[in-house]
Amino acid sequence: MSVAFTQTRQVEFAETDMAGIVHFTNFFRYMEQAEHAFLRSLGLSVHAEGDNGLIAFPRVEATCSYSAPLEFEETFEIDISVRERKAKSITYDFTFRKKNGVIAASGSLKTVCVTRKVDRLQAIEIPDDFAQAIDDASHKD
Amino acid sequence: MSVAFTQTRQVEFAETDMAGIVHFTNFFRYMEQAEHAFLRSLGLSVHAEGDNGLIAFPRVEATCSYSAPLEFEETFEIDISVRERKAKSITYDFTFRKKNGVIAASGSLKTVCVTRKVDRLQAIEIPDDFAQAIDDASHKD
Amino acid sequence: MSVAFTQTRQVEFAETDMAGIVHFTNFFRYMEQAEHAFLRSLGLSVHAEGDNGLIAFPRVEATCSYSAPLEFEETFEIDISVRERKAKSITYDFTFRKKNGVIAASGSLKTVCVTRKVDRLQAIEIPDDFAQAIDDASHKD
Amino acid sequence: MSVAFTQTRQVEFAETDMAGIVHFTNFFRYMEQAEHAFLRSLGLSVHAEGDNGLIAFPRVEATCSYSAPLEFEETFEIDISVRERKAKSITYDFTFRKKNGVIAASGSLKTVCVTRKVDRLQAIEIPDDFAQAIDDASHKD
Repeated sequence: MSVAFTQTRQVEFAETDMAGIVHFTNFFRYMEQAEHAFLRSLGLSVHAEGDNGLIAFPRVEATCSYSAPLEFEETFEIDISVRERKAKSITYDFTFRKKNGVIAASGSLKTVCVTRKVDRLQAIEIPDDFAQAIDDASHKD
Repeated sequence: MSVAFTQTRQVEFAETDMAGIVHFTNFFRYMEQAEHAFLRSLGLSVHAEGDNGLIAFPRVEATCSYSAPLEFEETFEIDISVRERKAKSITYDFTFRKKNGVIAASGSLKTVCVTRKVDRLQAIEIPDDFAQAIDDASHKD
Repeated sequence: MSVAFTQTRQVEFAETDMAGIVHFTNFFRYMEQAEHAFLRSLGLSVHAEGDNGLIAFPRVEATCSYSAPLEFEETFEIDISVRERKAKSITYDFTFRKKNGVIAASGSLKTVCVTRKVDRLQAIEIPDDFAQAIDDASHKD
Repeated sequence: MSVAFTQTRQVEFAETDMAGIVHFTNFFRYMEQAEHAFLRSLGLSVHAEGDNGLIAFPRVEATCSYSAPLEFEETFEIDISVRERKAKSITYDFTFRKKNGVIAASGSLKTVCVTRKVDRLQAIEIPDDFAQAIDDASHKD
């Protein structure tokens, strides 16, 4: 599984907790933000206009395993890979790496393509051009 | 200016930062949540249905002065007062008190009543029953 | 596996996102806050004083599956169960239930008991009284 | 009063609320992050080692006035100016500008230099080199 996109970022003060490290919930924010940056790098958006109105990608599953803490002002990298691209869903894997190469955490997000039908969300097939761009990016090497 | 409503809450772990105290931005979340609890206590909601569609109360000004830190699992009280209720806006004052009576912080929120007109927000007069309930609560003694 | 503790809470405005529902990362905050409320109900704290100094319970794994969204001001319940209590770790399961009984989400947190040794964290055995209280609560019926 | 530093950023999904715009509390996070980026640009850190131990800059006052909302994926700029640098405190002003030049918000943070004395914080004079760097940056033109 190849890395489709890498984002570099730095820990902000508000992301730390009284244990002096990044609060565990922020890794999920980091994952979502890396996913969105990846999509933007492909000219896509999580809030795209499809043939049948606005489509969105709510999360149906999120996981994270923590192996080493991140500290204030520490710079780290987030690698994002496309583990599985199905007709209606995309599952991403994320690896958080410290400057010295140590893995800080590994996580995943499973998202489903939906559109709004009257008052509820309905899972739909990912638009062709969106799916194609994801496939191209995930098999780029 | 009388206290219109008091909310008691306890500091959560995720609200602390690496200095070991509540991160300053969380006092603004506390204020908003006390405001909403106050409105609910009056049978009102910040997302109410008015005569001309959905009304909302976006913030136009927010301030906070910090005098003593709050720590993890500390219980504190938030007093809310209505400083000024005008035709289209409400300004609330907040006082954060520790168990021992010490003031931890004092803040304010100025909110404006708006409704959505096509693609933009327009300030409108606060609906009569909403305004009346606020006035009654703020002059209750 | 029996429910060890149930917490009732209400969705706050700041917990929603532009999709109009609770942002997925907040379920992890809810889990942690339910865990801490559970521990407090047993007279315990996540920041307890052990025989060898301060102990803490950092998370080593977190998961959540989402099945139905939660909306602003919606009241919901969080059931917490102890899935596994080992010598040095505790794994909790969480179920988020709407008022009508529908499951909104299911999640888990695996935490490890640590103490600070000079400049690093070291996994240690959970203190006896802490472990006993957890065991009693999780097998209460 | 000259602009001492400008930071460009983009609105993240998790920063929006159900009104479809950036939640007002996030402007305070933006201010703090711009302040820290400014200090880093001067080779300084908010958690610096002073002659008498670790110094920090807790906030004693924070204000924000909102004039136009920021939306998901919108790019904006934050200008930071040093309004006042006194012996023990620094007050920063912030202006949030949209791409088209429209002011989205204006805010301020007053911070005080402290060090930890046994179990409490004590206000102290800002170290000379720190103060000098701030002064140079704020009168640079």
